[in-house]
Amino acid sequence: MTKKDVIVLRDLLGTNKKVAGEIRRELRARGILAVNLLSSPGSGKTTLLEALAERFRGRLRMAVIEGDIETERDAERIRAKGVPAWQITTGGACHLDARMVGKVLNEVPGDVDLLFIENVGNLVCPASFDLGEDLRCVLLSSPEGDDKPKKYPQAFLTADALVLTKLDLVPHVPFDAAKAAEEALSIKPGLRVFRVSALRGEGIDELADHFVEALERLRSDRA
Amino acid sequence: MTKKDVIVLRDLLGTNKKVAGEIRRELRARGILAVNLLSSPGSGKTTLLEALAERFRGRLRMAVIEGDIETERDAERIRAKGVPAWQITTGGACHLDARMVGKVLNEVPGDVDLLFIENVGNLVCPASFDLGEDLRCVLLSSPEGDDKPKKYPQAFLTADALVLTKLDLVPHVPFDAAKAAEEALSIKPGLRVFRVSALRGEGIDELADHFVEALERLRSDRA
Repeated sequence: MTKKDVIVLRDLLGTNKKVAGEIRRELRARGILAVNLLSSPGSGKTTLLEALAERFRGRLRMAVIEGDIETERDAERIRAKGVPAWQITTGGACHLDARMVGKVLNEVPGDVDLLFIENVGNLVCPASFDLGEDLRCVLLSSPEGDDKPKKYPQAFLTADALVLTKLDLVPHVPFDAAKAAEEALSIKPGLRVFRVSALRGEGIDELADHFVEALERLRSDRA
Repeated sequence: MTKKDVIVLRDLLGTNKKVAGEIRRELRARGILAVNLLSSPGSGKTTLLEALAERFRGRLRMAVIEGDIETERDAERIRAKGVPAWQITTGGACHLDARMVGKVLNEVPGDVDLLFIENVGNLVCPASFDLGEDLRCVLLSSPEGDDKPKKYPQAFLTADALVLTKLDLVPHVPFDAAKAAEEALSIKPGLRVFRVSALRGEGIDELADHFVEALERLRSDRA
């Protein structure tokens, strides 16, 4: 990168941080917990959200902002579960930024409890962009391999929780969940680790409880 | 993006294109076929290269440039197969660029036939950066899902070949290889499609033959 590139990048991240701060304040004031989901393409973000939608049905109101380069496919899958969803198509950009999220924020109904933001499938670039979330979850699916945390450290360093997904595939792929978790923890001590198979419904309750506790904390801090 | 960002990006891609053109000319003059491998993290790029190393052993001389954000892991795996490998760690950057490749080019021995460049695991950003390759292959692994081509069109649009990987997992994951291929072909008509399971050694011969034919074409064009 040239000096000019570095200056532009710094300006970009600086503006993003400011907008993200405003979003965080607004969502906290409204008592909404925002969760940014970040992973490679096809790690199971949308499938996890579908499983959470089933889990929260009738208990808490969930909404989803979907980030993709192209297509409305993910938002359509979420809406089919009766959950309001807004699709942001970035038209080529490799990550969501706070300004994009800010644009749909006033459409989010007042009675929403949990706002999930599914980022563009990319284990690199989204890690640098705060979206105003309260929790950041990075997903790693078993077929991707247990060597990924140290190869893509920023995503794990900036996350609050690691969700190991597609664990039903473990008998068929070389993946050691304990090794993946240990490596992620060496990058980010204190990271909460969850093990799920959305296909089999395993581990979803523990993850859902984690979000509910964070929501209760956010609301009691506000009171 | 602001107007300033667009100008910087244009300058960056313009410089990259120029350097990539120089690399292409040099490699063609040396009779080396360069192949840029592009995919999400964990789609099986390194495993495919290991399988190709076995296939080409004693027949053709192969070399690999490994791109990763951090770690020498992939280069070590390739070297363990007796293939020379250079690890480029981008230190945060989400893709290889031509300048990075150019820096290791003079270390590539004169008797190399096939130079594979394994890009950073990212289905988005690497698609915009020409590395001076003669062939670009995009990999899509079955666990990622057959809906990915239209969600990440640029990677498929700029590729010469699509390699569907980890097809041994098809009984365990929702993936329709014909649907994935059809969708990729709707983006890039004429794309060559290969179906492989590196774990089982299936489809590797067809892909290897494709590279050998491209090498022969490059050398006969040069003659």
